[in-house]
Amino acid sequence: MGTSDRMGGVYSPVITPFDRNLNPDAARLVAQCRWLLTQNVGLAVFGTNSEANSLSVDEKIDLLDALVDAGLPPARMMPGTGCCAVTESARLTAHAVKLGCAGVLMLPPFYYKGVSDDGLFASFSQVIERVADSKLRVYLYHIPPVSNVPLSLALIERLIKAYPDMVVGIKDSSGDWANTKAMLDAGWDNFAIFPGSENFLLAALRLGGAGCISATANVNPAAIHALYANWQAPDADQQQAALDKIRSLFSGYVMIPALKAAVAHYSGDPTWMKVRPPLDAMTAAQQRALVDNLDVAGFKMPGLMARAAE
Amino acid sequence: MGTSDRMGGVYSPVITPFDRNLNPDAARLVAQCRWLLTQNVGLAVFGTNSEANSLSVDEKIDLLDALVDAGLPPARMMPGTGCCAVTESARLTAHAVKLGCAGVLMLPPFYYKGVSDDGLFASFSQVIERVADSKLRVYLYHIPPVSNVPLSLALIERLIKAYPDMVVGIKDSSGDWANTKAMLDAGWDNFAIFPGSENFLLAALRLGGAGCISATANVNPAAIHALYANWQAPDADQQQAALDKIRSLFSGYVMIPALKAAVAHYSGDPTWMKVRPPLDAMTAAQQRALVDNLDVAGFKMPGLMARAAE
Repeated sequence: MGTSDRMGGVYSPVITPFDRNLNPDAARLVAQCRWLLTQNVGLAVFGTNSEANSLSVDEKIDLLDALVDAGLPPARMMPGTGCCAVTESARLTAHAVKLGCAGVLMLPPFYYKGVSDDGLFASFSQVIERVADSKLRVYLYHIPPVSNVPLSLALIERLIKAYPDMVVGIKDSSGDWANTKAMLDAGWDNFAIFPGSENFLLAALRLGGAGCISATANVNPAAIHALYANWQAPDADQQQAALDKIRSLFSGYVMIPALKAAVAHYSGDPTWMKVRPPLDAMTAAQQRALVDNLDVAGFKMPGLMARAAE
Repeated sequence: MGTSDRMGGVYSPVITPFDRNLNPDAARLVAQCRWLLTQNVGLAVFGTNSEANSLSVDEKIDLLDALVDAGLPPARMMPGTGCCAVTESARLTAHAVKLGCAGVLMLPPFYYKGVSDDGLFASFSQVIERVADSKLRVYLYHIPPVSNVPLSLALIERLIKAYPDMVVGIKDSSGDWANTKAMLDAGWDNFAIFPGSENFLLAALRLGGAGCISATANVNPAAIHALYANWQAPDADQQQAALDKIRSLFSGYVMIPALKAAVAHYSGDPTWMKVRPPLDAMTAAQQRALVDNLDVAGFKMPGLMARAAE
């Protein structure tokens, strides 16, 4: 199997819009995904920053159908499909594969803590066996600060060996460069490693990383992709510093409401402020402070359009 | 509203049997629940120890239907219905209320960590408003060692004030007696407080607690109920010590596989050993060691029957 089968580049865990009743708004999501594609950013819908775990499996299936029905390319989609129950992960994963999604990003089951590598191996294995489709491509999702269920290097290697054509990459959202570097240094053949933040994009690309999957690719997609595309350029370190500067303006806040407040402001569409519980939307004052700092930094979201008023 | 509306007594988070394909086995679950009822223990199905979060919402709905269809009394049921997505919690809760379940045990959404009391209040509120049924009775579920999302005393009080006829109790699985005592001392009127272990049963009953909801009520139900029923007897402290002794024989192991290994042994039905990933079943050697210790302690599970071989 050639490397062309592996996904690479910059992906956004696309924020999920909600209507006034806190139900998902498929039309706004389609528009946002279309805009992200124009910025050369792929669609890691149903990530942590998509509030994926505040959506039911049925809601995720309906939204994915809406994206594909709207003509967006499944080849650019890596939906998150890892749930707590293997039966739910299998159902959502099978649906994504049937729609032609190029890959899925799979959390481990995250309710039970302190579980063994054997148990986690069996979880991923059950999902893969129940999906039973040779077109499945799994990108593992390591995010111990949120899931509280880490994926060890030994487990990853065991999954690669058991399913070399199906377990083909990982997103490392540990926030720990030493861990990402250990993965990059592990010598796993033809395995796509995405840091979970553009803070590590240049460092990862220099060691053979595949790109990044980052919350702030929702708001700063073009610049992040520009570094991905030009990482060997003489100004790569300056580009990285500029990305870090913008990200730092968000990372002082709870990330999801901050991303939504930025999109609400720059699109002129206040509906984007809404989050589902247990998250809290930004207050108007918090949004103002965020935007003031972004304006000072010269931040823009070119091409982002408001939907017509409802 | 009178106290008669509140549930009390000993409840078991009933372990969930799986067949050889790791699918839920409704017939075995019905038989197990029927046995627990003969031991005067109520049915907190879909608790943590039921592997509830390794079951899909569809699987839980099907199992609950099977229990009610089999003639088991919904008045003795307190199913766990808290999921990560308010839409899933609402769907499962509404179904339980429709079936006549006397209460539901509700986890907070447990993926996103470090969320605010406002966000958690909004989560429970959304579920209650979406269910929109005056027969709903919510027992909150505080289990920070597993959920990693604690429920503060201030949040509990706010929920009671907002929904005095619907938020009527709590299970405290913190394992922290000081926390349970603070709840018992809070002066919440007509509010049922269940420690999450029989270790605290007598102490809680002496302060007005409602009973307990405990993993080991799956295996030692009659003795736990006996203390509940006779907590003012002269030998209550000895009864408590005997319960603690049996529980200690389980608590050195991962609880769920140990409970299942005991039921498998004493019923003569090895199918009970099966757990869903990410948990691991006990090995035969572990089961032997557990049972040896239980035998030495004179432990029995009277009346537990094997199902006929398949």
